[in-house]
Amino acid sequence: MAKIAIMGLGVVGGGTADLLTENREKIRAACGEYLDLKYILDIRDMPESPYRDLIVHDIAAIADDPEVSVVAETIGGVRHAYEHTVRLLKAGKSVVSSNKQLVSEHGVELLALAKEHNCRYLFEASTGGGIPLIGPLSRDLSHNEITEISGILNGTTNYILTRMRDGGVGFETALAEAQQKGYAERDPSADVEGTDACRKISVLAATAFSKLIPPAKIHTEGITAIRQSDVSAAASVGAAVKLLGRAIRRGAECFVFVAPFFVPKTSPLSHVDGVYNAISVTGNYVGDVVFYGRGAGAKATASAVVADLCAAVSGAGPAPVWEAAEEGFPTEFGTFSCSRYLAFSGVDRNAVRVVFGDVEFISGAEGEVAFLTPQQTECECADGIARLSVGGGQLLSMIRVYEVGERPEA
Amino acid sequence: MAKIAIMGLGVVGGGTADLLTENREKIRAACGEYLDLKYILDIRDMPESPYRDLIVHDIAAIADDPEVSVVAETIGGVRHAYEHTVRLLKAGKSVVSSNKQLVSEHGVELLALAKEHNCRYLFEASTGGGIPLIGPLSRDLSHNEITEISGILNGTTNYILTRMRDGGVGFETALAEAQQKGYAERDPSADVEGTDACRKISVLAATAFSKLIPPAKIHTEGITAIRQSDVSAAASVGAAVKLLGRAIRRGAECFVFVAPFFVPKTSPLSHVDGVYNAISVTGNYVGDVVFYGRGAGAKATASAVVADLCAAVSGAGPAPVWEAAEEGFPTEFGTFSCSRYLAFSGVDRNAVRVVFGDVEFISGAEGEVAFLTPQQTECECADGIARLSVGGGQLLSMIRVYEVGERPEA
Repeated sequence: MAKIAIMGLGVVGGGTADLLTENREKIRAACGEYLDLKYILDIRDMPESPYRDLIVHDIAAIADDPEVSVVAETIGGVRHAYEHTVRLLKAGKSVVSSNKQLVSEHGVELLALAKEHNCRYLFEASTGGGIPLIGPLSRDLSHNEITEISGILNGTTNYILTRMRDGGVGFETALAEAQQKGYAERDPSADVEGTDACRKISVLAATAFSKLIPPAKIHTEGITAIRQSDVSAAASVGAAVKLLGRAIRRGAECFVFVAPFFVPKTSPLSHVDGVYNAISVTGNYVGDVVFYGRGAGAKATASAVVADLCAAVSGAGPAPVWEAAEEGFPTEFGTFSCSRYLAFSGVDRNAVRVVFGDVEFISGAEGEVAFLTPQQTECECADGIARLSVGGGQLLSMIRVYEVGERPEA
Repeated sequence: MAKIAIMGLGVVGGGTADLLTENREKIRAACGEYLDLKYILDIRDMPESPYRDLIVHDIAAIADDPEVSVVAETIGGVRHAYEHTVRLLKAGKSVVSSNKQLVSEHGVELLALAKEHNCRYLFEASTGGGIPLIGPLSRDLSHNEITEISGILNGTTNYILTRMRDGGVGFETALAEAQQKGYAERDPSADVEGTDACRKISVLAATAFSKLIPPAKIHTEGITAIRQSDVSAAASVGAAVKLLGRAIRRGAECFVFVAPFFVPKTSPLSHVDGVYNAISVTGNYVGDVVFYGRGAGAKATASAVVADLCAAVSGAGPAPVWEAAEEGFPTEFGTFSCSRYLAFSGVDRNAVRVVFGDVEFISGAEGEVAFLTPQQTECECADGIARLSVGGGQLLSMIRVYEVGERPEA
């Protein structure tokens, strides 16, 4: 029997405690032994909780108990979570985390500490909710050269974009609906501005490339500027607008960023609607594989936490280490090349052709000129936009076009 | 450094040797040590092969070499593969297999042998090609109560069904195209009659439920009877015809079978086209997760073989054991309940209503009556079909309707 603890009895911590209780026998079969929840660290007493007798307020109770071998960190944020995690790892206790912020900001140090103290730091639950993702990347696909990870990593924004398409509503209305349904927080900025997806692509890129890029160094765009007419324009060319976190190796270049994309319907990602997440991983042998599921929620995220608890208890292969990303990694985003959807007012098609060359005009909103550019870099595109602006044009929207790599042949 | 061997230098064995060579450093990082290919067992000499110097013709060379710790079995079929696998496991060598027939027919014995001799029998490559599936089910999701696995497990039939829809061609034409492109064998029966999918759902169900149902006891239907008009009828109600392998727990009942289904577009499985596979897994905490990718091919399948080689070398958690399925497992298929698409000639709508009650009539081929029945069991439906036949009706098609469980809300 392994004695474990949970830090933080919030939504995910509570779901984890429930799962440990409800699936106790199943977990034993999976791990080879029972997982026995001995402590829950929380600042509150929570007298109404079924787990009230397990609650402790001092991390020392857990850190200094030699019986406890693995601890789940579901506190969130950095301050306490970081201090407690360091203390536990130094005490030789494995820590499993749902905390994407902590992993993306301190993963290098925490993985090194775990290796030094012969324990594990695992974080399946930090990314993609219940979807097995870090596990498959670290184990099942780890012998592939990973050339790309592109994913819908945030359910809130995907819900909003789905509603804008299917309900024909604008961003503000869709956001209000998401808040009403509990999919978006009262302050939705971490979701709609891309911060959440940025932390997750940081974690995924580090898992694939063993180099951690701090979120502050990742080019990040959200969806607040997306108009209903942009979503309609996407639909008119058989695409869906999706906020993607992407990590792409192209020869010596490696781009890591978050931005909305026109995703053509030939990509499985275009069919992922509502609060669901999906992540496409491309490896040099496996080709494209996609992982799809609930990216959030107490039960799904608890599933990922317990997966890591089981892995920590039953042994999980060699412990990874990450380096801090060196200068020049990722590649300067200005050189990223793709096709783009642009919508302008105050210009005519001729002016567009003069500046952007062989574009494909598509149906845009009343009084706008909308088109898809040829492949060009960020810098080239910005230059074109500037030239049209000088001529009196006003840029209304710019959304990149996702290039579908492998297509299902048929 | 771990010394390994491959049995069978065919498509998958050759791909595995290539992957071991090309991704040698990546594998070392993944496993913590190099995997060194020492022998390849084949009856041929293959003087043109880059691996000719490794070829041996006698299994004893591998089985009696104490340096070899893990062996990949990519022979296929049962006779030699079974004998060699038994011999190697008894010698304490782990065996990883791409052989769905062997796993589905002898998995109980082979897993028990592996446990007894303190080695591993692994078979990620037996199902879903390169898609991580057995690994995630055995590790990342193993603490969930699995209530359903439903998947597109055969790329050949999925290609044929996709062509019937998109190309408007009949089964025979689509099959000929598949053969021309190398997606179908000259004798396509194992694919189109469902045998291949049957072996795979046997392996997946055993992985989830720890009980192996021999393929001969799994109700299996193929796609040879599907007409282009059935595919069109599906499209008219927003569905795609997909051949599914399914393992479904409903309370005390557990159904395991292979059959074509109308899959509504609200299911991610409906968007999986061409030779791709996708498998939906439902767990009591994780909810629905879907795994998508190439279900066949030398490189993708080699990726799965090497995933298992790495797992065997670096330690892979507790070794599973399977029981042989007892009497009554799976549940008698006659009690399986769902809605069904039926197409008849020689009956009118009134007769259909009298027998089947509140049906939904849909557009069928000229001179046919096509409809969707209410939920009813196999036996109830067969009874209805018999009654209409007595009245002069002729059944032209019967395809079940896949019930989408969780829907992406939006």
